[in-house]
Amino acid sequence: MKASSTKGGAANKSSSRSGRRGGGNKRQDTRPAAVDPTARLGAPPKAPFKGLRVVALGGIGEIGRNMTVFEHQGKLLIVDCGVLFPEDQQPGVDLILPDFRHIEDRMDDVEAVVLTHGHEDHIGAIPFLLRLRPDLPVVGSRFTLALVAAKCREHRQRPNLVEVVEGQRTEHGPFECEYFAVNHSIPDAIAVAIRTDAGVVLHTGDIKLDQLPLDGRLTDLAGFSRLGDEGVDLFLVDSTNAEVPGFVTPEREIGGVLDNVIGKARQRVIVASFASHVHRIQQVVDVAHRYNRRVAFVGRSMVRNMQIAQDLGYLSVPDGLVVDIDTAANLPDDRLVLISTGSQGEPLSALSRMARGEHRQINIRANDLVVLASSLIPGNENSVFAVVNGLAKRGATVVTQQSAKVHVSGHASAGELLYLYNAVRPTNAMPVHGEWRHLRANAALAKATGVPEERIVLAEDGVVVDMVDGLAEIVGQVPVGHVYVDGLSVGDVGDSTLSDRLVLGEGGFIAINVVIDDHTGRAVSTPEVSGRGFSDDPTALKDAAQLVEAELLRLATEGINDAHRIAQAIRRVVGRWVADKYRRRPMIVPTVIAVPSAEGK
Amino acid sequence: MKASSTKGGAANKSSSRSGRRGGGNKRQDTRPAAVDPTARLGAPPKAPFKGLRVVALGGIGEIGRNMTVFEHQGKLLIVDCGVLFPEDQQPGVDLILPDFRHIEDRMDDVEAVVLTHGHEDHIGAIPFLLRLRPDLPVVGSRFTLALVAAKCREHRQRPNLVEVVEGQRTEHGPFECEYFAVNHSIPDAIAVAIRTDAGVVLHTGDIKLDQLPLDGRLTDLAGFSRLGDEGVDLFLVDSTNAEVPGFVTPEREIGGVLDNVIGKARQRVIVASFASHVHRIQQVVDVAHRYNRRVAFVGRSMVRNMQIAQDLGYLSVPDGLVVDIDTAANLPDDRLVLISTGSQGEPLSALSRMARGEHRQINIRANDLVVLASSLIPGNENSVFAVVNGLAKRGATVVTQQSAKVHVSGHASAGELLYLYNAVRPTNAMPVHGEWRHLRANAALAKATGVPEERIVLAEDGVVVDMVDGLAEIVGQVPVGHVYVDGLSVGDVGDSTLSDRLVLGEGGFIAINVVIDDHTGRAVSTPEVSGRGFSDDPTALKDAAQLVEAELLRLATEGINDAHRIAQAIRRVVGRWVADKYRRRPMIVPTVIAVPSAEGK
Repeated sequence: MKASSTKGGAANKSSSRSGRRGGGNKRQDTRPAAVDPTARLGAPPKAPFKGLRVVALGGIGEIGRNMTVFEHQGKLLIVDCGVLFPEDQQPGVDLILPDFRHIEDRMDDVEAVVLTHGHEDHIGAIPFLLRLRPDLPVVGSRFTLALVAAKCREHRQRPNLVEVVEGQRTEHGPFECEYFAVNHSIPDAIAVAIRTDAGVVLHTGDIKLDQLPLDGRLTDLAGFSRLGDEGVDLFLVDSTNAEVPGFVTPEREIGGVLDNVIGKARQRVIVASFASHVHRIQQVVDVAHRYNRRVAFVGRSMVRNMQIAQDLGYLSVPDGLVVDIDTAANLPDDRLVLISTGSQGEPLSALSRMARGEHRQINIRANDLVVLASSLIPGNENSVFAVVNGLAKRGATVVTQQSAKVHVSGHASAGELLYLYNAVRPTNAMPVHGEWRHLRANAALAKATGVPEERIVLAEDGVVVDMVDGLAEIVGQVPVGHVYVDGLSVGDVGDSTLSDRLVLGEGGFIAINVVIDDHTGRAVSTPEVSGRGFSDDPTALKDAAQLVEAELLRLATEGINDAHRIAQAIRRVVGRWVADKYRRRPMIVPTVIAVPSAEGK
Repeated sequence: MKASSTKGGAANKSSSRSGRRGGGNKRQDTRPAAVDPTARLGAPPKAPFKGLRVVALGGIGEIGRNMTVFEHQGKLLIVDCGVLFPEDQQPGVDLILPDFRHIEDRMDDVEAVVLTHGHEDHIGAIPFLLRLRPDLPVVGSRFTLALVAAKCREHRQRPNLVEVVEGQRTEHGPFECEYFAVNHSIPDAIAVAIRTDAGVVLHTGDIKLDQLPLDGRLTDLAGFSRLGDEGVDLFLVDSTNAEVPGFVTPEREIGGVLDNVIGKARQRVIVASFASHVHRIQQVVDVAHRYNRRVAFVGRSMVRNMQIAQDLGYLSVPDGLVVDIDTAANLPDDRLVLISTGSQGEPLSALSRMARGEHRQINIRANDLVVLASSLIPGNENSVFAVVNGLAKRGATVVTQQSAKVHVSGHASAGELLYLYNAVRPTNAMPVHGEWRHLRANAALAKATGVPEERIVLAEDGVVVDMVDGLAEIVGQVPVGHVYVDGLSVGDVGDSTLSDRLVLGEGGFIAINVVIDDHTGRAVSTPEVSGRGFSDDPTALKDAAQLVEAELLRLATEGINDAHRIAQAIRRVVGRWVADKYRRRPMIVPTVIAVPSAEGK
């Protein structure tokens, strides 16, 4: 699997991902780790046999593709293996995987991969990891593994699943894992404590502290406190909402808002949310039932996940409440709630197609009520507002989290993170799951609760952290880049391809085709100059063609008959012409083909 | 000037712009206009000589490139002429202009263009309009015209400027204009009332109702009320913040927040804001002065605009307070405030370069304090957060509107809009300056204040609204598209070029070059297959080359020797191959060149 290089990678992406360098502190240094992120780190020393090594291959310095590798006594344990969704700077890419280079030659040393919950940014890369080792034990809670199983089926894989439940302990080589219930925006999420001879690590995964969770399954703060009494040497903490002051509103309060919004509605109601947010959907289902409306699930992942959730008892639906979309079409408007995918404006999702008037079964009408019971993930604004505008244009009333409290976050705000630090009282803290702005904010919270600044490790993907004698520090870094999935193949699209795509996407290309005689090197036809993505004006390239002809004559008179040099000359001439005349920078693609021509004879 | 077609245009852009169709109501219809936005409108009838015709060429159904054309007794009056900045779906485009087709053959009928204020989305297209008629009177307030003059100088134009002040009246053919002071996020903004024999129109431009404006220049609500007493037949109202409940916090309250943030700071302070937001900058200057810090302006537009603002007396700066950037470099950290451009994460702006560590003079250090005293314009999240992450990575503390009240909007919220409707009491209301979600929200406010639903005109760019006998209605539409400025040329980049760019940006291209004998049609060299933006794998196209060779043989045996048919066949073969093997859709570019070859003889 080929990974894009660190440096090239940085050049090609927003600095929210550009950093692949960690901090540079030595133990005697009392400043926080990574205080000088521009300091290049060297290759790490051999992993200390008695120590614990931590390397994140994804999820630090970025939000997504979470994957942390723990190493102890020559063995490896992986926590999470997710994907990242591409940004504008990664055109044509479907998914971004963690960079497996650090472990791919050592897959036999991997004892297991532990999954904290079933979101794509924590499980999405599992099928790709299993390609390296199909029998790798995949450890997780019931709902998480159900989603993993469904995903692996699509990849024709039969993973070796090990189901665990909070409170349980499992051994994986030198790693003893203990699992704690946590709440998040998906059921059955867990945190994992990892006990080794080198010390105790606690990894929160994604976490919040809803004190009135819909399923009554509290984040096990008491368990964290007991672990804190025992002593936690290293605490890896979700940073996503560290910048947000205060506390996340309990999920169940959304029920009241939905009751108000849907209860008052006389028209058809369409609710869009995340297909994995079972508790959110549960509340929509309950409200629909209360107001004598049937429910139809719309969108492939929504239908699939809600079936799984019902089968496993995470979603309870009264008999006969759910109807299929065709039946729904025949129900009166005020007897129906459609629950759809597409809350992030994904162009192919059900809701986007409705907004464009392209959905096969559902035709948005004036007075439809559409509720976006979801967050607006940064970067998705354009697509989400495009959907909202499309719906508004068709006369629908659109309710979003801006106009009503129909969404709460799944990640702990600053106030909750303080509870976590005070319960765990870690020796070393390591913010994870965040961009730099989130990591810094989380570090400030750790410090505020008394974690010494020099014991707060601000790392990044690829940065190697060793914990020896209970002290964690950055010792080097391993190369990590972005591994792109584009269509069927993984890794063959790298940074040079992406930078070409960016150039082509900005300015198109101008192709110049010249055929020369393989003996004389003289052109045996007039050069063909064509452009795509350059101009709608068919005459735009006329003068360029003349310039090329003139240049070919000049080269001929100078006796230059080498195809490569001719191509270079053409590129130079056309490049200068287009810069002067248009101030544009299309890709210039000269092709010079030498053939045995009539003239040559 | 060539404009991209309506339909193609829609296909190519987010539906926040996709609508180029207006409403379809007839007078007897009592539903609101545009209740069926999918109804295609026909060409408009001849403009009623005694009536008033209103056509927006930009700014309705989108935010930006505001331009409204009023027609009465065969003469035209234009209000504003701005640009729109491109989205992801318009790659490589620098600016988007209003579509002038509706007026370009009638420029001699245009009496004047009235500018409500100096923001780019209201004045940016003036140089392009003046190319059609250099002597066109450009009417506006003092500060607005100063910015227009500076812009025109860059285009080597000497516009015919007509300076006006609030309270003044000017005549332009059959249009009598009266100007009203309004406040906004730039000084000297005006609203314009247009009196004609067909009735009185009031156009707010961009507006808010700050009751404690920094310059004491209130939005002239009293004047609007007087006009309301006289009777306003058509009211065009800024919709930007119609979705936002309540009222905008007075600008001056930001002064206290800045005093608190900067006053407490012991380190270097960098404030980023809009280069035209003179009052925001004034407050930063005042705070800097209070705490004995010098000020340096950073970024070309910031330096230019602040000079203009000082020269005209809109910005007051104590002598010696402002230093140049080199002098600033030698000042102690706690004696300096840098005021910079780049609050929207523009990649080439001063702040972005600082965040990437690429600024020539300013090197971000741990503990620098950076204040983003600006909004986060939707669509800019990725770039702004990239800047924030870059600064955080370097150890700077970043204050944004999320963490402190360092920004307020320049557009009236719902509460203020109600004041406007109640003061003006219009017969007909027409929401402008907004996407569909904003227009709908604004229409709901108009209705709430008593404007009859059938008298609220929900139009869009190109939709033709005629006001006859005091009743405004949609009568048709004129073609409008997006006119793209790319580099030096205007309009030659249209939708086919953009869709090519999107295809190339997503998947790159595969070029196949074949040379055939012009007599036999047989290939006289092995085909050259190359790709850019397709794969980093040099061997990726090997099998494709073999496929092409096989296809060429097949064609030869079938006696197919026509270059065009050969090219088609190659495209088909390679297209199928890449879809099957990669599930990708690069552009396939076959070139078949016929030459007199040795074989031919």
